[in-house]
Amino acid sequence: MSCKVVLAQSISASYREELKNTIKSRNICPKLVGFLANDDPAAAKYAEWTAKTCAESGVEFELRKCSRNDLENKIVEANQDAGVNGIMVYYPVFGDRQDQYLQNVVDVSKDVEGLHHKYVYNMYHNIRFLDEAKTKKCIIPCTPLGLVKVMEYVGVYNGILPHGNRLHGRVVTIINRSEIVGRPLAALLANDGAKVYSVDINGIQEFHRGVGLKLMKHEVSETTLKVEDVLPLSDVVITGVPSPAYKVPSHLIRDGAVCINFSTFKNFDGDEIKKKAAIYVPAVGKVTVAMLERNLVRLYDYQAQDRATVA
Amino acid sequence: MSCKVVLAQSISASYREELKNTIKSRNICPKLVGFLANDDPAAAKYAEWTAKTCAESGVEFELRKCSRNDLENKIVEANQDAGVNGIMVYYPVFGDRQDQYLQNVVDVSKDVEGLHHKYVYNMYHNIRFLDEAKTKKCIIPCTPLGLVKVMEYVGVYNGILPHGNRLHGRVVTIINRSEIVGRPLAALLANDGAKVYSVDINGIQEFHRGVGLKLMKHEVSETTLKVEDVLPLSDVVITGVPSPAYKVPSHLIRDGAVCINFSTFKNFDGDEIKKKAAIYVPAVGKVTVAMLERNLVRLYDYQAQDRATVA
Repeated sequence: MSCKVVLAQSISASYREELKNTIKSRNICPKLVGFLANDDPAAAKYAEWTAKTCAESGVEFELRKCSRNDLENKIVEANQDAGVNGIMVYYPVFGDRQDQYLQNVVDVSKDVEGLHHKYVYNMYHNIRFLDEAKTKKCIIPCTPLGLVKVMEYVGVYNGILPHGNRLHGRVVTIINRSEIVGRPLAALLANDGAKVYSVDINGIQEFHRGVGLKLMKHEVSETTLKVEDVLPLSDVVITGVPSPAYKVPSHLIRDGAVCINFSTFKNFDGDEIKKKAAIYVPAVGKVTVAMLERNLVRLYDYQAQDRATVA
Repeated sequence: MSCKVVLAQSISASYREELKNTIKSRNICPKLVGFLANDDPAAAKYAEWTAKTCAESGVEFELRKCSRNDLENKIVEANQDAGVNGIMVYYPVFGDRQDQYLQNVVDVSKDVEGLHHKYVYNMYHNIRFLDEAKTKKCIIPCTPLGLVKVMEYVGVYNGILPHGNRLHGRVVTIINRSEIVGRPLAALLANDGAKVYSVDINGIQEFHRGVGLKLMKHEVSETTLKVEDVLPLSDVVITGVPSPAYKVPSHLIRDGAVCINFSTFKNFDGDEIKKKAAIYVPAVGKVTVAMLERNLVRLYDYQAQDRATVA
């Protein structure tokens, strides 16, 4: 079998190593506060895992539990506390538009998850820096950013092309169009030059910057295409379907494709996919957490920069 | 315009630098003999160019002119002369099957062009070493080898995949199926995992190792496809049509393709192709000459190795 299976751990290792070295050599201790305001055992599990990973890297992680009605005030307190460098919330809290409101309560300068409207807007508009001098890169949500890093690691990004165009010529199908991962990911990849087919239950949208990347940011068009049309065209297939029953039809995958799953369920049939794919990445969770820490250190530095400017 | 134009000189520079350093640091002076037995001004020009390049690298180049009827004896003499490390012939000499005979007169151990039947056979059969211990790599003809190096340089080969499979998932169209470049190149790329459409005036053949690279070497199948079918599917388009009138139809090229021309004529319309291609390599001659020198140093080392074994 010629398929190369790439585990998230191999990808996250170099990022985590770099992070540990940065924290140690600079003798800093960035502090991340996580808010848990639900009874979701998955959220509690994720919080546990974050705590463990942070401890290994030299990041101070504090889990603060509260009722959902207290959450907003608790976030405001953390915003004002200079000792807190990063804030994250275990969603869903209310499970409706109030969660989106809460995402904008987290101060931009502490939003490790990149969920504040400013970051979301900048990402969709391919605005890559917070400042005109281009010293502060925007924060990108951890899972989409992790998937970009996975694609860089497995050679989908072409390093000979200039930054921002490195996916020119790649066709990517993403099966998931959630606001948390699928849609931002489609935008990120299209902004980097890919032609992206974004699949959800209602149909397929195409995200692209036009022939020869003539647009500065991606545009989206509706298509009448079906999964059986787009999979055979796709160099890369990324899935995040939250169901144990769902499997990508292996026979539609292009020979030599790169297949990446970010669902907690196995969306690819491992045996079948290995007979066709050139590269298979069965999970990406560890890369996501590495990106969380990476975003935190970035925010830590921006905060120091801001204090220096004020002083 | 987002197209990146890559010049052969940028690609050959690192190979030539490495070569110069090797020759200098090891204090060696490999000797290449070129036989010119025709009145072709293009051959004379190429010989001049080879001489100049060799002088820059520290390679001793000697051009020996003779009549075509004396050529065989002159080759045999050079075969027997321990002071000669590499032999090349400026073809065409007779312009028929006698040239193929002459290619096999050049001793395998001195054949810098990789045209001896042993090398040709090994290349088509994906046999990469001359010896069982795998210490001596086979010599690959300079232009096809140069094109492989071009494709490595521009990121078509995926370094995360194991050697020998690094083109898995790539679709390549080659417009030229000469015995000197097009057909060996199709075989090399298919052996490295690509699906190759090999185009000539009589039709299109497909070279491939099957789904999941299940074959150890490529196989060839006839197709009824036309250029307008295969170009839109191709990640890479390589052309070598020896005519100033021929132009690849730009509108058929896939957005973001890699376009490489090895003809001395411009087979792509430069203005049009830059509006679509991600990468455009307008010529490869300098890489070819670098490969000639590289092959020579390799043969020099094999000869030293052989003398050491005998001694």
